[in-house]
Formats: sequence, C-alpha cells, structure tokens
Amino acid sequence: MSAATFNHADTYRCAVQLLAERGVQLADIAELVMYLQKEYIASLAFESCLESVQAVLRKREVQNALLTGIQLDMLAEQNKLCSPLQEMIAHDEPLYGVDEVMSFAIVNIYGSIGFTNYGYIDKIKPGILGRLNEKRSGVHTFLDDLVGAVAAAASSRIAHRYHQQQANRRRETRDLDTGPKPDGSAD
Amino acid sequence: MSAATFNHADTYRCAVQLLAERGVQLADIAELVMYLQKEYIASLAFESCLESVQAVLRKREVQNALLTGIQLDMLAEQNKLCSPLQEMIAHDEPLYGVDEVMSFAIVNIYGSIGFTNYGYIDKIKPGILGRLNEKRSGVHTFLDDLVGAVAAAASSRIAHRYHQQQANRRRETRDLDTGPKPDGSAD
Amino acid sequence: MSAATFNHADTYRCAVQLLAERGVQLADIAELVMYLQKEYIASLAFESCLESVQAVLRKREVQNALLTGIQLDMLAEQNKLCSPLQEMIAHDEPLYGVDEVMSFAIVNIYGSIGFTNYGYIDKIKPGILGRLNEKRSGVHTFLDDLVGAVAAAASSRIAHRYHQQQANRRRETRDLDTGPKPDGSAD
Amino acid sequence: MSAATFNHADTYRCAVQLLAERGVQLADIAELVMYLQKEYIASLAFESCLESVQAVLRKREVQNALLTGIQLDMLAEQNKLCSPLQEMIAHDEPLYGVDEVMSFAIVNIYGSIGFTNYGYIDKIKPGILGRLNEKRSGVHTFLDDLVGAVAAAASSRIAHRYHQQQANRRRETRDLDTGPKPDGSAD
Repeated sequence: MSAATFNHADTYRCAVQLLAERGVQLADIAELVMYLQKEYIASLAFESCLESVQAVLRKREVQNALLTGIQLDMLAEQNKLCSPLQEMIAHDEPLYGVDEVMSFAIVNIYGSIGFTNYGYIDKIKPGILGRLNEKRSGVHTFLDDLVGAVAAAASSRIAHRYHQQQANRRRETRDLDTGPKPDGSAD
Repeated sequence: MSAATFNHADTYRCAVQLLAERGVQLADIAELVMYLQKEYIASLAFESCLESVQAVLRKREVQNALLTGIQLDMLAEQNKLCSPLQEMIAHDEPLYGVDEVMSFAIVNIYGSIGFTNYGYIDKIKPGILGRLNEKRSGVHTFLDDLVGAVAAAASSRIAHRYHQQQANRRRETRDLDTGPKPDGSAD
Repeated sequence: MSAATFNHADTYRCAVQLLAERGVQLADIAELVMYLQKEYIASLAFESCLESVQAVLRKREVQNALLTGIQLDMLAEQNKLCSPLQEMIAHDEPLYGVDEVMSFAIVNIYGSIGFTNYGYIDKIKPGILGRLNEKRSGVHTFLDDLVGAVAAAASSRIAHRYHQQQANRRRETRDLDTGPKPDGSAD
Repeated sequence: MSAATFNHADTYRCAVQLLAERGVQLADIAELVMYLQKEYIASLAFESCLESVQAVLRKREVQNALLTGIQLDMLAEQNKLCSPLQEMIAHDEPLYGVDEVMSFAIVNIYGSIGFTNYGYIDKIKPGILGRLNEKRSGVHTFLDDLVGAVAAAASSRIAHRYHQQQANRRRETRDLDTGPKPDGSAD
C-alpha cells in the first residue's frame, strides 16, 4: 500500500508502538519533561507533560525521525547494515552524528529554546535515557537521542505556552487594548 | 516595560506593522506562497495562502526573527552599526550568512520540506522578492531572506495539510478505524 | 571490527565507491558545482570543482550522511524496511523529510550560503539530479538530495575561498599590514 | 570602505577585540573547552584548547555571528533598539531564541557532535559563562550563548581530530593497505 494511504493517526500509532517495542513508554518521556521543567514551573502536572509528549509525537516530522532511527537501530542489532555503517551504529561511534542530526530536526520544530534542554539531558541521561544507556543488549544509538529530543521538544512546547499565559495575564491586569509601537513610543 | 508584558497579539501586530513599514504586505507574501504551491495544488485559493502566512507570523520564533532582522536592516540604513558589520549588512556581503541562518530558523519550524522552496525563490526572486532586490534605496539584507522564509514556511504548512487530507480521504474510502486525532499536529 | 578502526581514508573510499555503485561519479557532482558557480566565477575550472567535491567528501559528517542515506535507499529497494517507513522511502513520500534533514547537515558544514544553492538545484534538478529522478528502477530518495547537498557545499566552499581571495587582493593593493593567517578557516 | 575589503585577518581581529571589550578572553573560552574535554582526553593540553578556539574564531561564519550578536547586546545596553525587541534582548526574554539560533550556526560548522556540549555548558554555566550570567550591569543575551557555542565547536574540533588519530594509529598497527568493502566482506 502506498505511503500516501497512511494518515497521521496511523503513523502516530506506529511510532508509539515502535517506542514501546524498544522499551520506551510515553510516561518515561513525560518523566524527562517533568525533570526538565519542574524547576521552572512548580505547578506543572505530570498529565500536562504526557499531553505535551503526545502532541510532539503527532508531528509527522517527529514520527518520520523515530521510524527511521529506530529502524536503523534494529537493523544494526540484526547485523544487516553494510560495513562500516554497521560498526558505526552498532558501537555508537563517537564521530557518527546522524543520530544527533535527526534529533535536532525534532527539537527544531518547537524552536531554539529546546536546544539547551536536549544537550543537557543527553549529557546527564536521567530516567529512561540512563536505562537505555546501561542496556548491555540491543542497539539504541538513535533511540536514546531521539527520546531526549522528543522530551526537549515537549518541554519547549510547555515553556512557550506557560510564558505566553503569564504574558497574557500581565497584559490583562494592565488592561491595554493597543500594542506597543515598534518605534518605541509608549502608549 | 518588561518584554514578558508583550503577548503574541502584540508581537504579531508589531511584526506585521514592521513588514508594512518596510514595504511588504501580507498579500505580497501570500503571492509567493501561491507561486510556490499552485503547480502542486491546482485548487489552491489565495485566501488559503494568506491564512497560512498569518499562521506562520503568529509563531513567536518567526516574529523574533523578523523584529531582529528588520532592526538590523534599519540600523545599517542609518549607518549606526560598528564596522565591519555596518559594511557587511549595508552591502549584503556574500560571505555574511546570518540573514540566512535566521531565515532557516523560520523554515525549520514547518519541517524540512520547506528548505527547497526557500532556496528556489531566494534564487528566482519572484514578486516582492524581486522588487526588494531592485530597490536602489534602503537596506533589505535580512528582509528579503526573511520574507522568502515566511513564504516557504507557509507553503510547507499548506503542503502538510493538503497531503494529510489526501491521505485521510483515501483512508476513509478504505473505511479503516481511525486513531487519535492529529489536532496538535496542525499548528 | 570496531568502527573506530576505520579512518577517514577508509570511509572516504567507502563513500566514493557507494556513490559509484549507485550511478554517481564525482565528475557528475563537479558538473553541478560548475552549474551553480560559473555565473559568479567566469574563470572557474572544472578541476577546481572536482577538487572541492573531494574536499567535501573528506568530511566525516558528509561520509556518515551518505553511508546512512544510501543504505536506506538500498534497503527500501530490497523491500527490507518495516511499514510504513518502507513505503515512505520507496515512494519518496512528500511528507518524508529525513532525507532533507540529512542533506542540510551537509550543507551546514560550509555555512549558510549553501542553502540557496541546495534548494535551487533540488528544484531545477540539472545533470545527474535529473537522471536520478528519471530512473524508473531503483530507489534514490536519499541519494538525489545528498548529491545536491554535496554539490551545494562544494559550491559554498569555492565561493568562500573566491571572495576571500578577492578581499585579500584588495587589501594587498591597499598595502595594509596583515594579521593572523586564516589557515584554519580553509578546512 | 566596502565589506569586501575586509579579509579574514581583519574580521578575526575585530571578533577577538570585541570579545575582549565585552570581558571575554580567548583563554576563558579555552577553559570551557578544557572543562568539556578533559574527561574524555586525559592528556589534553590547555594550549591545544586555545589553538582550537582560535581556529574556530577564524571561520567567517563564526565571526559574523559574534559581530552581529555582540552588536545587538551593545545596542540593547544603550537602549537603542525598537520596542519590543529592546525589552526582549535587554531582559533575555525566555521566548527570544535568536541568540540560540545564531549559536547553533556556530556549533553546526563542526558537526552535530557539538550540540550536546553546547546544551550542557549553557545549562551548567561554568567559568566565564557563570561570570557573564552574574554580571548585574550590561546586556549579554547573545554573548553568553555565542561564547558557549565557540567552546562547544572548539571541543568538537578536538574530538574529531583525537578520534581520527586513534583510528589512524589502530589502522597502522593493523597495517592494512585496502579499505573495507562496503558490501561488508572482510579483506
């Protein structure tokens, strides 16, 4: 069947299923989001983190990156890639950066404020990232970076909405109806 | 007054006003979108292009890039930048690529399928891009790239929605049960 | 054998060999560079284009992107990928943008001035890009984008060096004392 | 004088001078590189870090980003930008990400392996990054991100060279003269 016969609902289901098969539940990613945001938003609820992870996973670009990266992990696990790509992915070769390139395409979608969060958890490896890293069996060269990217993107999404709500609240209290002039003159 | 007291409505208004002050109407950008998409979507309406341009301009990342780039154009026009930055921007120096870096942050938000469209119109310079380029007076080093980026992003947004509708239609005809609604994936 | 036992010479050889097996000679890519640069540099020699393509292909990031993308093309050709990724790559699905994400990682290495060239030839498809596109047999979803990216990067590299030489020449005529040699900036 | 009359030596000098005027010595950046790499390369010398920082600063793209970002910091300090951009940069508004976009253009040049390092030090803020952050006076919205990006890029450059040397050494000991076949067959 042609790819064009898959819709977002199908590819969303595929992505979530693939993550589960590789040992990653959406709740694991939501925990990373909570880890990244709780210091900024005290009132943040786990449900909001989970909802944000689901919203990120509904993006076609995110689904495509996950399907592609996890597929490469699985093929490397089965030793089905050509050399030297097989060895690069199987051993998470330090100079192999395609996994990070694909992860950044995910972080990018919610804007640049997610870059810091991605780099931070990729280095600290909390929660599921640590567990994927410890795993003696299986190749997770792409998976751990992609999971970190989804968490970073979901965090940016929450941050964007939070700061916007704050701004709206302040604006309402000031009860302005016109916006500031770009020439800098006050209203 | 603190930046956090500006909300999306304010920054949207500022961005649209700044574009107008620099000679760019939203309809000019919508024309670029039509130019890019009409060969793929015969039924595309100008109103859909305009609506898509407005949706792109509602993104905070896009507003920030526009405010920053146009400000640099204006300061270069007033000869208020330090050398050699003043000369680089005033003369749109070939090795100065910060304008394109900022434009790509815009294109990125709607995914990689916009890259080709951006590069294409940046080279062909149809409509408003040609007019900005011909302008003997004024510095538009950032503006023309940013306008092309907004048009490319608005085109990607339209393409994403169009292909998704097509897929949904085909799926429905196959009468398969659907999964979660891709509501989040729209924006 | 561990990936770390492959050096640049090995991976360079692998990348060039893989390109040849998929029907792309370095001369084909050099022709694209000539196509992109000849209007800017009248005196440009084909040898300089070829040398620039080889320099780009010596970058490990570029080799990794080529090895990964071509591998995915080959696996899709052999129908060895999981659905829906198999269909997406086999049919070069319009919403599948991982090929462009990987291509942009290549263009990026030589700076943002290559973006325009990439988008332009990806749309116009001159020379080898047109031939790859016409091919009825075989999957080249990644290959055509990656080849365009290598050509765009090689063009940026030439443009950077050309403009720098021009600047140096002008500076010398003004006989100003020079500072540190930009030796590092070449690579 | 036209921008094209500036060569790399000029722009390199300008960038280094601007950094110094804003309180950043190359040695401060080299310390960040040491902080990032010492755990991976025990034998790393401070001189190598400094040399790598200088090589990164010789890249025209890096110089352009520094000149542009620091200029914007200075103008915000002098309250010379239009509202709301003035407030966004002066207060390092959380949703303003142009500083990170420009920083990523720097990290990108040495490939994706620098992303993690950038995000990590941007969050931890060791050395000069912490001092810039504490500064009560002055606007450093762009500067701190750009300095972190230069350090991350210089680290990637060192990592690339180190891993390559290791690979070359291993190869020599194996005294192979032919590279591995991409079809996976051993020599």
